[in-house]
Amino acid sequence: MKLNRKQIQAASGAIPADIVIRNGQVIDVFNLKIIHAEVAITDGLIVGIGGHYEGETIIDAKGRFVAPGLIDAHVHIESSMTTPSQFAKAVLPHGVTTVIADPHEIANVSGVKGIQFMLDDSEQIPLDVRIMLPSCVPATPFEQAGAILTAHDLRPFYNHPRVLGLAEVMDFPSVKNCANDMIAKLADAKARKKIIDGHGAGLDNTGLNIYRTAGISTDHECTNADEALERIRRGFYVMIREGSAAKNMKALLHAVTPRNSHRFLLCTDDKHLDELLDEGSIDASIRLATNLGLDPLIGIQMGSINAAQCFGMFTKGAIAPGYDADFLLLDSLEDFRIFETYVLGQLVARQGQYIGPELLPHQHASYLKRTLRLPKITREQLQIPIKNGTANVIGIIPNSIVTDHLMARVNVKDGYFLPCTDSDFLKLAVIERHHGSGKIGLGIVKGFGLKTGAVAATIAHDSHNLMVTGTNDRDILTAIQAVEKLQGGIAIVADGQILASLPLPIGGLMSDVPLPEISNGIRSLSQALIAIGFDGNFDFLLTLAFLSLPVIPSLKLTSSGLFDVMNFEEIRV
Amino acid sequence: MKLNRKQIQAASGAIPADIVIRNGQVIDVFNLKIIHAEVAITDGLIVGIGGHYEGETIIDAKGRFVAPGLIDAHVHIESSMTTPSQFAKAVLPHGVTTVIADPHEIANVSGVKGIQFMLDDSEQIPLDVRIMLPSCVPATPFEQAGAILTAHDLRPFYNHPRVLGLAEVMDFPSVKNCANDMIAKLADAKARKKIIDGHGAGLDNTGLNIYRTAGISTDHECTNADEALERIRRGFYVMIREGSAAKNMKALLHAVTPRNSHRFLLCTDDKHLDELLDEGSIDASIRLATNLGLDPLIGIQMGSINAAQCFGMFTKGAIAPGYDADFLLLDSLEDFRIFETYVLGQLVARQGQYIGPELLPHQHASYLKRTLRLPKITREQLQIPIKNGTANVIGIIPNSIVTDHLMARVNVKDGYFLPCTDSDFLKLAVIERHHGSGKIGLGIVKGFGLKTGAVAATIAHDSHNLMVTGTNDRDILTAIQAVEKLQGGIAIVADGQILASLPLPIGGLMSDVPLPEISNGIRSLSQALIAIGFDGNFDFLLTLAFLSLPVIPSLKLTSSGLFDVMNFEEIRV
Repeated sequence: MKLNRKQIQAASGAIPADIVIRNGQVIDVFNLKIIHAEVAITDGLIVGIGGHYEGETIIDAKGRFVAPGLIDAHVHIESSMTTPSQFAKAVLPHGVTTVIADPHEIANVSGVKGIQFMLDDSEQIPLDVRIMLPSCVPATPFEQAGAILTAHDLRPFYNHPRVLGLAEVMDFPSVKNCANDMIAKLADAKARKKIIDGHGAGLDNTGLNIYRTAGISTDHECTNADEALERIRRGFYVMIREGSAAKNMKALLHAVTPRNSHRFLLCTDDKHLDELLDEGSIDASIRLATNLGLDPLIGIQMGSINAAQCFGMFTKGAIAPGYDADFLLLDSLEDFRIFETYVLGQLVARQGQYIGPELLPHQHASYLKRTLRLPKITREQLQIPIKNGTANVIGIIPNSIVTDHLMARVNVKDGYFLPCTDSDFLKLAVIERHHGSGKIGLGIVKGFGLKTGAVAATIAHDSHNLMVTGTNDRDILTAIQAVEKLQGGIAIVADGQILASLPLPIGGLMSDVPLPEISNGIRSLSQALIAIGFDGNFDFLLTLAFLSLPVIPSLKLTSSGLFDVMNFEEIRV
Repeated sequence: MKLNRKQIQAASGAIPADIVIRNGQVIDVFNLKIIHAEVAITDGLIVGIGGHYEGETIIDAKGRFVAPGLIDAHVHIESSMTTPSQFAKAVLPHGVTTVIADPHEIANVSGVKGIQFMLDDSEQIPLDVRIMLPSCVPATPFEQAGAILTAHDLRPFYNHPRVLGLAEVMDFPSVKNCANDMIAKLADAKARKKIIDGHGAGLDNTGLNIYRTAGISTDHECTNADEALERIRRGFYVMIREGSAAKNMKALLHAVTPRNSHRFLLCTDDKHLDELLDEGSIDASIRLATNLGLDPLIGIQMGSINAAQCFGMFTKGAIAPGYDADFLLLDSLEDFRIFETYVLGQLVARQGQYIGPELLPHQHASYLKRTLRLPKITREQLQIPIKNGTANVIGIIPNSIVTDHLMARVNVKDGYFLPCTDSDFLKLAVIERHHGSGKIGLGIVKGFGLKTGAVAATIAHDSHNLMVTGTNDRDILTAIQAVEKLQGGIAIVADGQILASLPLPIGGLMSDVPLPEISNGIRSLSQALIAIGFDGNFDFLLTLAFLSLPVIPSLKLTSSGLFDVMNFEEIRV
């Protein structure tokens, strides 16, 4: 933001402010106190708190709390299955006015074109979308993604004013072994004094030391308080994640004290649209933290100024002069009930409804459509030979993207695995879908609890190949064909019939229709999942989508086959 | 700092580290805890804490505390009367490894040449000297300084890697009134995402709002806890100052809590060499805070990581991987007793003695010498007419650079002021010394307590004209002549004889001899001051030097005459 004489004049009272908020209880995120003070705003900037200001417009807060707009410190917008412009309409009513987005998913499908699309679609919208450049496309050498991004490919994006740094570095071996292109990516970010996000899932202390030495300064993959404290003491900012699949608040909150709370941020990472709409985003994290006993002021601090501080956004995250007038009026602090959301002084949401400027999905995304290239898949290609009745099985942990690595006896017929709904062993397949190579990885999964049918989707982290699970081969094949016909999306099938489907034509990841339609489509999917036996105790689709991510422990499946994350090697079923 | 493969390899244990510290109690400035952990260092960077590392060199800490090197967040090195290279030898034994210096004093004498000298003299020395660009030369339009620095003059310095931003903005009216050159200076810093330091002495809340709106983000001029909290809540970082003249720790410490301590920094601002050597620098501040009841870990946090954070020095201020290996071994935490100081892994001081590489004063400073231009001064020019026996008198407040504005009856002879040692009314004069204009400002001061003689100095904030105070005109004239003969410096005179003097040939502010000689000279001055009646209860010379600074309340004297700071106007005696 540039220096503006009008703002200085308004601060001094020489001219009236554009807006004055009266009768508010202002959240002071620096002292962690509540103060009674007027707030004056001019040209989108807070120019004064305290004292008495004249204003062109007066907002009577009627005793409500005035809190800074929230910041989601790390989010893959694609996981909402909406584009940034539609995502904005979902999160602004929940008080999120800035997100730090890593377009890792669309980049894995469409490379630099995907990153550019996310920048274009978020241009001139009320949500402030900052971009971190995907560092690991593909995430590991074991994957078949739609694109490969080198340091050379990323470099031009650093000139974009909304690019803050290098996104989550998840390819730990490349850092440890000083792989040339990884070193180049890290060095590029460092040379420009940009932030480098980490992804330290399961890293031991030596691993953490390596990451910090390489200049990586955040992590959103802690699963317990000890891990959080080990990271904090090494200079990491720890992001507490509450997403659809991964929920870490309860476990990490023990690590937060008034002495170190300024080193914690909040993020959603991956959250489905229906949950964003129903439950919320960072507001839900603050609500949960408060319910678990945290001072709500610390919750707000973690969800606002801390992220601004970490990422060098020096005009974001506080109700104080010199800060952007992104603010919330709250009816209550205890349950963080949001009355209104303002961005740069403009009202954009009231009582859960987006009421800002009309936002249509970006119309020039045709180059990201028709991304599926699949050969014909036959039943024979889906057979899993089992040697002695024992198999390596992926065990789902509800509400986590970490899996168990199970060794289990499974049903075998004619030397091949036979799914069994009673003992809940389902077939799982990941089919390369970017290049038509015909590569298929096969595995067995326990924990979905389906009683019939199959589910296929083109969302499968991080390479976003075609992921399918099911109780029988016929439904599995039907689901694959349904998704292929959609040119990307999700299909739920039983008895050879499509029960529900959602087209995701943009890269096979995002919808191109307005928000309410997407929302309806997702609700149909949820109903269909219940119809085929899912008990609804966790997010089925996100959990499925993460079964192919080989940088999260313990056992995963890629289009190359089963992957033992702890030993970082492929293994047989 | 660039990315370095050797450091990553050492972090991973693939190769031995250069240095490993064993048996240390590591200060964790993030969680504010003490941990027992090894520290591994390679190529000057900390590459690991915790675990076990092999090292080429082992430092056995023998149970000592391992603390980050301290950061003085705001210092005018010139006030030590030494150049940066000699200053380094004074503060490194006191654990200060980084200073954020504002070369405001030498810039007021010599303009851009003065700034360049400070950069040159601090090149390749173990103390990391970062520079803020003087924003207000001269400090006000009421002063006659040696130079005028415009935005145009400062701009080229932003390309220097050690320049962090724009130094303390003290010309409040120029900001409030949007004076063109001030706006240009602020805009230049903002456009480059550089930090802007403030100087908010006596500002009310509207004034603070104006400063923050203009992008100013620090203040080191708080004198009580309420002022500190008002600044913190507006997004300022508050620097707690303990200098020779201004001591604010005791008053401000009430404002510090575990919830807001990360927003406080420590600074000395102006501290004489003898006090730096005897009492210390930021180490003394931490010691004092601990004595006053603060958790020493919070003291260390304020004196290290907080300053690094505020100024965007992301590799400074912590014992953690990815941070520069600037560290201290402490014998005790309670009295912050420093055993050794290391910079980038190199030992530079032990038990109070500098033992790093030899540091000679910069040899190319001839262009900063012979800066005094004085016409002949006569006794007649020093007479102060008094109308009705009542005068505006500057009242000294011990250990503060703020003065009282007194109205007092003074002795008058033939219509002119007569100094009186019984009631302690001395004569004070500021003589323009840069351009030979013959301008002389005259006033009366109470509080020095001299019984005889006079004291003259070419240190007189911020324009550094010739400042003299005394009990009689003859000694005042002798002191002026003595300082003129030195071509800058300090002289103490009684009965027409020079009791002690200190040459300060670099700009009339800094000595050009090695540290021990300067130190001896300063001790002679102190003894001479006692000899002429000073009771030694505060820093005489620094207090004298600040009587001419018209941006500090309440009543000051410049070469234009008495200045009422509260009303920002010149007044009669």
